[in-house]
Amino acid sequence: MTARIGPEDISEAAVRVAGHIRETPILRMEPDAFGVRGALTLKLECLQHSGSFKARGAFNSLLSTDIPVAGVITASGGNHGGAVAYAARALGHKARIFVPTTSPRAKIDRLRGYGADVTEIGDAYADAYEASQAVKAETGAVEIHAYDQPATVAGQGTVAREIERQTGGLDTVLVAVGGGGLIAGIASWLQGRVRVVGVETEGTPTLTRALAEGRPVDIEVGGLAADALGAKRIGEIAYATARDHVDRVVLVEDDSVRAAQKALWANVRVVAEPGGATALAALMAGAYTPEKAERVAVLVCGANTDPATIV
Amino acid sequence: MTARIGPEDISEAAVRVAGHIRETPILRMEPDAFGVRGALTLKLECLQHSGSFKARGAFNSLLSTDIPVAGVITASGGNHGGAVAYAARALGHKARIFVPTTSPRAKIDRLRGYGADVTEIGDAYADAYEASQAVKAETGAVEIHAYDQPATVAGQGTVAREIERQTGGLDTVLVAVGGGGLIAGIASWLQGRVRVVGVETEGTPTLTRALAEGRPVDIEVGGLAADALGAKRIGEIAYATARDHVDRVVLVEDDSVRAAQKALWANVRVVAEPGGATALAALMAGAYTPEKAERVAVLVCGANTDPATIV
Repeated sequence: MTARIGPEDISEAAVRVAGHIRETPILRMEPDAFGVRGALTLKLECLQHSGSFKARGAFNSLLSTDIPVAGVITASGGNHGGAVAYAARALGHKARIFVPTTSPRAKIDRLRGYGADVTEIGDAYADAYEASQAVKAETGAVEIHAYDQPATVAGQGTVAREIERQTGGLDTVLVAVGGGGLIAGIASWLQGRVRVVGVETEGTPTLTRALAEGRPVDIEVGGLAADALGAKRIGEIAYATARDHVDRVVLVEDDSVRAAQKALWANVRVVAEPGGATALAALMAGAYTPEKAERVAVLVCGANTDPATIV
Repeated sequence: MTARIGPEDISEAAVRVAGHIRETPILRMEPDAFGVRGALTLKLECLQHSGSFKARGAFNSLLSTDIPVAGVITASGGNHGGAVAYAARALGHKARIFVPTTSPRAKIDRLRGYGADVTEIGDAYADAYEASQAVKAETGAVEIHAYDQPATVAGQGTVAREIERQTGGLDTVLVAVGGGGLIAGIASWLQGRVRVVGVETEGTPTLTRALAEGRPVDIEVGGLAADALGAKRIGEIAYATARDHVDRVVLVEDDSVRAAQKALWANVRVVAEPGGATALAALMAGAYTPEKAERVAVLVCGANTDPATIV
């Protein structure tokens, strides 16, 4: 049976991570900002430690577990790897991170900048993952999953608790979906009292496909946002939670994501990576159209991109 | 006698500009962030309309005056010009803006993007200014000064009122100084109950030099932040206000400003232009050193730069 997360798990996570994660600001937008209907609030989670919401789940995971001297281990050169490296350093643990040799130099440098022991191995993610499993078995290091563990989901859920308190009430939250840790945490906190809309790019439709097939299935991923949203299948926790507490999942094209990135810079001077601009893209492209007075929050969930690419 | 601004002028300005300017967020930093002592809060005024605090003064100026059909006029391709163009469009007025032909294409495009009627004329700022004066006399358009008018200063002062309310109390505010409109507004609001520290780059020391000479004097300006802080002399209002209510003015090198820009991106994913990172540079370079428990706010006052330049 799939683990489920409740509001109490998220409240406990919020206490655990307090002082380690940032309370990121919201920005209430003026009427018609981005050409979008509704009363729009941006949640600037892109200003979080390590540049994405992943720090919430990473801190909650590390603080929920006895970490051995061997430290933590994961295979990810992306936002999750960065968050694990950041949290491990902050808490005084070793972090060993496996990435394929094809990872961009900038991402590898960032992991090393956070003090992680980075191993570049193989051409594909699967090679890096396999190597990480061998070292995990050998050393006893604790594996931190990117999305499909209860502590990770509960940590991500703290962002919904924060938004609700900051805004004083909402009708709808739009959130990008990759492996589903973020939407699972948010939907678990909101329990249907706020409409949760998942947004996927056409190249990364893990939740869309799972809901259509009636179960999580492996998909081919690609396109602009694949580095952040490109999990091969939706997590079990996310799938089970989404069936109960996610109103709908909509798809956007890469061009809409790029337009949302440009609009965030032009109108608000906020840098978002493609995955971080995906939720706004759904509003701008009309994939979700709020009512006139609808109180809508958009999660700008990451900024780990070369800022030269957003203008 | 030099005009002075009081808290009541700023409260009135705040009412006037409400709904036109953004309440920009603050971000409370963790202990030792940026290697700086004190309890540090960033005021993210770089997320303001038109990308800098200048929108506050521009809206207050336009809303304080009867604007004729000929609209408003100014000579500036920088943050002030952008703010005037933005505010004029938002309020339904014409904006005529004069810039030297040597202005960067990106800045001119931005002004046109805000709907301004832009005239490129002459090689130097003085040529553009002279042309603007001739058209002003001919058309009756209202000139909006970048810093040395009471309505401009009162508008900029609204940011101090906002910070004080958002933080619930402060010991010190650090703010970059160019023509001095921003520091004059802030010091006029705070009236000495919070320490105001002005920060200038070594290439733009208008207030430093005025305080040393006992009066505003023309200086040669240059260096990294000159496009935003490069007024030739401090405004009369700013000079008079600074003598009473500014604790001190410190200087920073361009390299420190560049380091502060990089640190803002690396640690917070915030893009600041050189002038926008100048106040933080003073802390990072040790030009101002807070006490351990000192509640310090740093104004990140603008983001109008090519984001490719900040990494």
